[in-house]
Amino acid sequence: LLYFDQINAALITVYDQEHFQGRRCEFTACCQNIMEYGMETVRSLKVECGVWVGFEHSTFNGQQFILEKGDYPCWEAWSGSNAYRTERLMSFRPIYSAMHSDCRMTLFECENMTGRQWDVCNDYPSLQAMGWCSNEIGSIKVMSGAWVCYQYPGYRGYQYIMECDCHGGEYRHYREYGCHAQTPQIQSIRRIQH
Amino acid sequence: LLYFDQINAALITVYDQEHFQGRRCEFTACCQNIMEYGMETVRSLKVECGVWVGFEHSTFNGQQFILEKGDYPCWEAWSGSNAYRTERLMSFRPIYSAMHSDCRMTLFECENMTGRQWDVCNDYPSLQAMGWCSNEIGSIKVMSGAWVCYQYPGYRGYQYIMECDCHGGEYRHYREYGCHAQTPQIQSIRRIQH
Repeated sequence: LLYFDQINAALITVYDQEHFQGRRCEFTACCQNIMEYGMETVRSLKVECGVWVGFEHSTFNGQQFILEKGDYPCWEAWSGSNAYRTERLMSFRPIYSAMHSDCRMTLFECENMTGRQWDVCNDYPSLQAMGWCSNEIGSIKVMSGAWVCYQYPGYRGYQYIMECDCHGGEYRHYREYGCHAQTPQIQSIRRIQH
Repeated sequence: LLYFDQINAALITVYDQEHFQGRRCEFTACCQNIMEYGMETVRSLKVECGVWVGFEHSTFNGQQFILEKGDYPCWEAWSGSNAYRTERLMSFRPIYSAMHSDCRMTLFECENMTGRQWDVCNDYPSLQAMGWCSNEIGSIKVMSGAWVCYQYPGYRGYQYIMECDCHGGEYRHYREYGCHAQTPQIQSIRRIQH
């Protein structure tokens, strides 16, 4: 029962104008296309409960944006990349695996879980500062919980949400990190927790 | 002697073109104006050792950018805000207080260390998720170490570097957070560590 209650503890309010103006919708579960609710796109939002991931395109495609509890008055509040600025947020869903009390994953130097490996269970704003030899991760196995991996140190650049509940937690090639991934470059990682 | 060695363990390489091209300079201590080294601005950089803070303007003014070990091939790799896109990085310095093994600070609801308070010694991607009632911090006292405070949840938006070594660790008003601070809005915080 507790688990069921936690699962349902997700609430997001989205607006079609910046600074919480314009048309407003509340969601407690995934939204695959905000246009179905009469909005052209989402321009501001408030996460009231739970942890969510937002997507640039409908049906959970394109750039990924971690959305934790708090106020996001404009696009720059959730985006991590301005090279490819689209200012769109068309779909979103709760991250249920963020409910796990522990987060564990294994990083691999090469694709298909090969090469040097490193088990992690903590946040690392710089993987290289902790001894990882490269600015790339070849593949990833998420054992438990949910993570955000970032292109650059200090939690900047493209975001990739990695979940133990998604395709068995296996990310065998950088193209599986997200459809916006253009390289295996990952330089910082952190756990997603409530 | 160990302390002395650690202090000197700071090395940054900066380039005046993106992707580590063009004129190149190495620094082991602060640089108050990159133009003194024949560069118009910094367009890419590598932090080889230590933790640094970069600034939009010369003499450590303007937007602040935390720079941890790793590769920063372009402006978007270190910037957290695109509302006010300047693509400039003119000065930088090592953060020596990031050497502290523990990080402690007190957050206050109101300015001048008044109102409700909260002692923190951990990373919080969402202060509101941890029970902080507002999207603002009125004032801050850093007891030890160095921190990055962010305007938005999930380590996004304007960055404010807070150090126990800077004016006694006291930030009594949001205008002391940094000269680019326009509001007391702070929604995520994390420690800076080697």
